[in-house]
Amino acid sequence: MENKPNTEPNIEELKSKIGFGIKYWLKFENESILGSGWAKLLECIEKSENGSLTQAAKDCGYSYKYAWNILKRIEKRTGMNPVITGKGGSGGGGWVKLNEWGKFLLKKFIGLRKKFADF
Amino acid sequence: MENKPNTEPNIEELKSKIGFGIKYWLKFENESILGSGWAKLLECIEKSENGSLTQAAKDCGYSYKYAWNILKRIEKRTGMNPVITGKGGSGGGGWVKLNEWGKFLLKKFIGLRKKFADF
Repeated sequence: MENKPNTEPNIEELKSKIGFGIKYWLKFENESILGSGWAKLLECIEKSENGSLTQAAKDCGYSYKYAWNILKRIEKRTGMNPVITGKGGSGGGGWVKLNEWGKFLLKKFIGLRKKFADF
Repeated sequence: MENKPNTEPNIEELKSKIGFGIKYWLKFENESILGSGWAKLLECIEKSENGSLTQAAKDCGYSYKYAWNILKRIEKRTGMNPVITGKGGSGGGGWVKLNEWGKFLLKKFIGLRKKFADF
């Protein structure tokens, strides 16, 4: 019933290698609606200068279709579109910007990020 | 370019439905080694009265095999077994208890849990 002490690694060294990971997301009535990847898109839209979704998606490293699906899913899960869209604009392909709901969701997520930044 | 205001739900009501989720885990050199499910097993082992892994697994709602695999994976990922085992004991099928490494990991995880309990 011995504990094989001679074959074990240095426990203090092992202890020093322990860290932790954390993940957080917004929920709407207990359904996940916005993690860091989706929040990043809202952020890219907010920061987009010409309001082009193509450009905002690109800034995030996402395809247009992937970005569009994120927005549609947020709308489906919450019952409200997080953006307003329109035709025209400097890009020619239409513009997009966060509406009150999109701004609120992004602000909430950024609030979480700040809260957990210390950890 | 209208925003269809008449079809939109009450935004204040929507806002009140926003909450958030959080998940955290221990890492060993950037690899995940202990989330809430695995920590629960270590906790069940620590609390086990007769030191039987069969019983500790059952207390957690896990099968013996699943529990055993958790312990083996922790050992594989960190290079050190979190438990010591032996034959005999009141159950007759061998006993298991946390060693210094297992106790340290559980303590670290409980520390995280306490840290995030306020959120």
